[in-house]
Amino acid sequence: MTAIHVSEVGPRDGLQSIERVMPLEAKKRWIAAEAAAGVSEIEVGSFVPPTLLPQMADTADLVAFAKTLDGLRVVALVPNAKGAQRAADAGVHAFSLPFSMSETHSKKNLRKDHAQMLEEIAACAEIARNHGIHFEVGLATAFGCTIEGAVPEDQVVRLAEAAIGAGAMEVGLSDTTGYADPAQVRRLVRRVKAAVGDDKLDTLHLHNTRGLGLANVVAGLEEGIITFDASLGGLGGCPFAPGASGNIVTEDLVLMLNSMGHDTGIDLEKLLEVRGILEEALPGEPLYGFTPDAGPMLDYNERTAA
Amino acid sequence: MTAIHVSEVGPRDGLQSIERVMPLEAKKRWIAAEAAAGVSEIEVGSFVPPTLLPQMADTADLVAFAKTLDGLRVVALVPNAKGAQRAADAGVHAFSLPFSMSETHSKKNLRKDHAQMLEEIAACAEIARNHGIHFEVGLATAFGCTIEGAVPEDQVVRLAEAAIGAGAMEVGLSDTTGYADPAQVRRLVRRVKAAVGDDKLDTLHLHNTRGLGLANVVAGLEEGIITFDASLGGLGGCPFAPGASGNIVTEDLVLMLNSMGHDTGIDLEKLLEVRGILEEALPGEPLYGFTPDAGPMLDYNERTAA
Repeated sequence: MTAIHVSEVGPRDGLQSIERVMPLEAKKRWIAAEAAAGVSEIEVGSFVPPTLLPQMADTADLVAFAKTLDGLRVVALVPNAKGAQRAADAGVHAFSLPFSMSETHSKKNLRKDHAQMLEEIAACAEIARNHGIHFEVGLATAFGCTIEGAVPEDQVVRLAEAAIGAGAMEVGLSDTTGYADPAQVRRLVRRVKAAVGDDKLDTLHLHNTRGLGLANVVAGLEEGIITFDASLGGLGGCPFAPGASGNIVTEDLVLMLNSMGHDTGIDLEKLLEVRGILEEALPGEPLYGFTPDAGPMLDYNERTAA
Repeated sequence: MTAIHVSEVGPRDGLQSIERVMPLEAKKRWIAAEAAAGVSEIEVGSFVPPTLLPQMADTADLVAFAKTLDGLRVVALVPNAKGAQRAADAGVHAFSLPFSMSETHSKKNLRKDHAQMLEEIAACAEIARNHGIHFEVGLATAFGCTIEGAVPEDQVVRLAEAAIGAGAMEVGLSDTTGYADPAQVRRLVRRVKAAVGDDKLDTLHLHNTRGLGLANVVAGLEEGIITFDASLGGLGGCPFAPGASGNIVTEDLVLMLNSMGHDTGIDLEKLLEVRGILEEALPGEPLYGFTPDAGPMLDYNERTAA
């Protein structure tokens, strides 16, 4: 079956959504343990000013550490070209810039309108090219915005094309607000792929705010998506709290993909053990997911046998 | 978009999974309120001996009451021909017999092997024909069994054909144990439809034991399934407790289907109000679902507009 990549974004999206700061050593244990379980891509942090997000102050250290782990693709989020330069200096394999499809959200989140964001994308692209780094633009609020409401699909398609035109090597669709449904995922993936090229949209970043996260993954798989972001234990994700993350849960995603016969390269039992690191480093922090309690699935080969 | 039916099975599958007996008057309020919210099919109870399941002792009364509600299809579960006769006498529109694909489970659950179950199906079919009632066989443990483990797909296909051959008017696939994954759902629906006829498999009964319930719904939709069982509030469903139901949550299912643009005929806001009846009649009983807390989706028409 198809190889599907699971990109762990908990050290970035999960940790930036909670108030507590996880100690650097715990972050390292977490990242190393996930890599050892077979996770091949981790977004280790964000190059935002530490005054804004003290949880992310050690991102450069984490990049350096993560790069020592065999076969791991080390990714960081950047809010602008300044962050991109820091990411490049730190030596990431790839960086990702969020570009909000809702202009209101863009102005509120990064204080830039769409035109200014496209300039920023061009500047980031130049840094990426100069350093031989992969540069992806995450199309945030692509499925709707809590401020603007519905975001027209034509607008998403147009801005995806503009981002590629400005130098992004790839775009991803992000359901920042948990509004996506499976029909919308299929429609929008198909339309954006048609506009920017089949190989320039590989990734979905889904949230589980309304419980549709894995249903949306299925829709994405049907449309040829091969990389899904997820957060261990759904960290940071009481999905109903304002501003909370609510990423889909890595363990449940891996259970589903492995059970479907996809090759994730991830050992689910080893992955489940990594939860212990979060429980120890962030006592009392709610963790989510069905898999830890429900027990394993039946063996794939036995189930498909006649 | 396609009309999709949501069949509420909480009054049967939910209530038989908890120890408390819901008073008849509360059951009536529940059923009437769901029908008023637009739910067009409800499994109101089970014609099992009241000594075995006192929760279901008032099923005949519920059938009589539910038949007074405009446009509602009234369904009951029957364990054997004796139950089918009681269901027919009570005047159900349809009854459903569970036929476990795992022979071990069949013997344990209904004390009959597969050959004996096929005789029971033939006897039920005769009762159904004589009374002009629809008779469906639910292929239980079709995706795996907690006792036997994997159930070969060839066996499910063969027993589905045998059930139709013995007189079942329709078969449904039941993930009694929460082992189904979306790839397996697509495969098995396709194979059973090919074997028994496209119009003789319309229904999936899914559980959410491992969080894959709605993902499996998406897979079923892709294969032309048009009826999905679900339980309000996931009643009876702490999904990890032994013997617990863990049905998919009606509210979340309706949120997803409506959001995808399917015509369920159900008013989600009215449906959400029905939870209050459960909370009042069964204080302290855990209810599940993301929808009640997460708030509504964006308007379908706005989202699909250019």
